[in-house]
Amino acid sequence: MLRQASTILPIRASRAGLHEFTNEVLDFVAGSGIRDGLLTIFCRHTSASLLIQENAAPAARRDLEAYFERIAPEGGAYEHDDEGPDDMPAHLRAALTTTQLSIPVKDGKPVLGTWQGIFLFEHRRNTPEREIALHLIGE
Amino acid sequence: MLRQASTILPIRASRAGLHEFTNEVLDFVAGSGIRDGLLTIFCRHTSASLLIQENAAPAARRDLEAYFERIAPEGGAYEHDDEGPDDMPAHLRAALTTTQLSIPVKDGKPVLGTWQGIFLFEHRRNTPEREIALHLIGE
Amino acid sequence: MLRQASTILPIRASRAGLHEFTNEVLDFVAGSGIRDGLLTIFCRHTSASLLIQENAAPAARRDLEAYFERIAPEGGAYEHDDEGPDDMPAHLRAALTTTQLSIPVKDGKPVLGTWQGIFLFEHRRNTPEREIALHLIGE
Repeated sequence: MLRQASTILPIRASRAGLHEFTNEVLDFVAGSGIRDGLLTIFCRHTSASLLIQENAAPAARRDLEAYFERIAPEGGAYEHDDEGPDDMPAHLRAALTTTQLSIPVKDGKPVLGTWQGIFLFEHRRNTPEREIALHLIGE
Repeated sequence: MLRQASTILPIRASRAGLHEFTNEVLDFVAGSGIRDGLLTIFCRHTSASLLIQENAAPAARRDLEAYFERIAPEGGAYEHDDEGPDDMPAHLRAALTTTQLSIPVKDGKPVLGTWQGIFLFEHRRNTPEREIALHLIGE
Repeated sequence: MLRQASTILPIRASRAGLHEFTNEVLDFVAGSGIRDGLLTIFCRHTSASLLIQENAAPAARRDLEAYFERIAPEGGAYEHDDEGPDDMPAHLRAALTTTQLSIPVKDGKPVLGTWQGIFLFEHRRNTPEREIALHLIGE
């Protein structure tokens, strides 16, 4: 019998950059009792985003952060800077990555590959608390 | 009782760039009678794309447009230009953003954050009419 | 009556770059017997990604490949290079494109536009076999 579960997960990164929250997502799926279905993760913000990336190598994480700092830098000639110099680069980095991820669930777990972790990509230096909507449909 | 609703939404941007259509999406969800579920928005084109972004600041919108014009410029040394100088940059900008968005729906509305709007990112100057497929599953 | 189907599709690109697998996806949908619903395609890797792009013009494909080679080049000053010079650029190109695609299904087929094909974007030169998770919910 197909059914749904959903929640809002509050997350606060300790600093700007990639913040893994795979375990919180696994807990939600396990707690739902749904074993097979489709999980959706949605970031309710335009200055933070989501990324599935390498969960093992801290150097890969640092390179990813440095890369996005370089291609969407602070100090560009932006018109919009209502909230400071990290405001517009945050929107650009969010646009280049993603606001939403959907992952099939099998046997009570998202079918992530061995090296895949789920990350909040926090683009603001003041790291506000973020709301991540989780939705699961299945049986 | 879970069920589905779907439609094809025709959209034409008045000029190349970001064109908000959040209201059209809200109307579809409200009209479906489905209160809780998962909404999917799919762009049936490779030279236009989708983006969830800041819906309040026109300056942020202009900065986003200028940014993608800069990192995937017209006049690059492209091999493919069957449909003119804005052809290949359109495909690149679509590849850098997204073709599809899924958003959980709660109490009859997508759980967008306060500042999030849903945009068609039109990359062609002649702004053809676009088809956006909408799908909703829930109850 | 809503139901689900899922599988793991093994794919191996013959070389780094864009490798179309639209037909394999169409076969999965047709074989499921589900006529209307939501299809999700998920790449279980962090050094390969997914892209919906122009399926007709080989020149557009070559331009896309050249573009991502240029904006996330080998030989950048990366800290992470455990698996060689194409290791970190692979993660960056995956982050700039997407790990997951969802497409509404109507009358037994994903509602792709006329020119849209589904591609594995292989970022490693040794082109390992990749696992693509497919999930379909509908009726």
